[in-house]
Amino acid sequence: MPDTALPPDSYPVSERNKVRRLHERGRYDRASVHAILDAAMIAHIAYVIDGQPYCTPTAFWREGDTLYWHGSSASRMLRAQKGGLPVCLTVTHLDSLVLARCGFNHSVDYRSAMCFGTARILEDAAEKARALDAMIDRFYPGRAQELRQSTAQELKATTVIAMEIEEASGKVRSKGVADEEEDYALPIYAARYPVTLVIGAAEPCPRMPAGVPLPEGLQGFTPGRRLDALMLENQQKAYGGE
Amino acid sequence: MPDTALPPDSYPVSERNKVRRLHERGRYDRASVHAILDAAMIAHIAYVIDGQPYCTPTAFWREGDTLYWHGSSASRMLRAQKGGLPVCLTVTHLDSLVLARCGFNHSVDYRSAMCFGTARILEDAAEKARALDAMIDRFYPGRAQELRQSTAQELKATTVIAMEIEEASGKVRSKGVADEEEDYALPIYAARYPVTLVIGAAEPCPRMPAGVPLPEGLQGFTPGRRLDALMLENQQKAYGGE
Repeated sequence: MPDTALPPDSYPVSERNKVRRLHERGRYDRASVHAILDAAMIAHIAYVIDGQPYCTPTAFWREGDTLYWHGSSASRMLRAQKGGLPVCLTVTHLDSLVLARCGFNHSVDYRSAMCFGTARILEDAAEKARALDAMIDRFYPGRAQELRQSTAQELKATTVIAMEIEEASGKVRSKGVADEEEDYALPIYAARYPVTLVIGAAEPCPRMPAGVPLPEGLQGFTPGRRLDALMLENQQKAYGGE
Repeated sequence: MPDTALPPDSYPVSERNKVRRLHERGRYDRASVHAILDAAMIAHIAYVIDGQPYCTPTAFWREGDTLYWHGSSASRMLRAQKGGLPVCLTVTHLDSLVLARCGFNHSVDYRSAMCFGTARILEDAAEKARALDAMIDRFYPGRAQELRQSTAQELKATTVIAMEIEEASGKVRSKGVADEEEDYALPIYAARYPVTLVIGAAEPCPRMPAGVPLPEGLQGFTPGRRLDALMLENQQKAYGGE
């Protein structure tokens, strides 16, 4: 896809982030990519140590074009490599199972985003402390100020990693069952099964003193709520439309 | 952890798969690693092209110590690299959000598995056709024989990738809220919110001829069913305890 065909406010497209397989599913505009990222709490991060790829799951969050995560096992590598570490951070939402009339057309509906950049450690203590509060508030609105403050030792034991998104792409399939025209008449069961990630009822810690109320920021955490919708909502509360 | 401390039937432990952060969460025995893998439909695959890491989501399945997936964007690379491609395949289940009394003890309960090996393309047509039927049956018991048979063109358009697991590790956190002893008395709301991936009610394809029954192999696909439990059950049906 030539750059001229991209919507405004898109990530640049290179050999690295161009969607190749089923390229009609590709998205490069920030709004589409961010909507996929912001609906997630967990990403998978690919990085390379001595030629060996690693894929590590981690909680992450986004501020503008910067992604943050912490405590990754890439930390050691990052410390050793002052220039930063090339990373691909990927988020995937499984939205449905698609059972078609032939094996080839079996599929899943999904939303995924791949982000490319160079990871760096937040070395500045104040910057790190701010980021960790932002992480809490991004997932749980207003919660950072309700917590026991972090100790110097806790902050020291935590590594926060940041990565500017240099390039990114989203990929979305949402069409459900799509068979060859001549197959629809076959007496074969075909269906879409929606898949959702949902939260259950809170299990309050039994060691809480009596009378601790549910904070207002957690009112949206209702049983059966979709986690992707809740995460999107909380990202909006934390950062607005940024 | 020295090898002598490992349970029987464990994967070997090296610098590559040793769990470093919070190593008490590490698992190396096949039963633990396989239980995490078999409960999933989607994995994230890390691989390297010209020094650049990529992280691609894909449906995958396991037969013994071999993992299979298809249609990955690593295909081009694999074709170019006859010796095979080093890969890290990772599966993650998010099991709960853990809201503690300080930022440092916020966490999630999860099960994840990382598998290391060398990916190769199934070049043999019969082997490939068998694997694709196995994929369908592993997810949807008995379904392959109910489908319109694959055409030669469909098989040709599909790449199936296999990888023997050389090393693997699992990592599990399941303890919910765990705070510092002196923090429990603080008047701070603390709770665990379970998270589950569930399937919804089937949306049958509206173009099915009248009277096509729901196949027996899909009887377990009931609304609200946990996908991880269903995937484990279907893996058992396909392969028993292997």
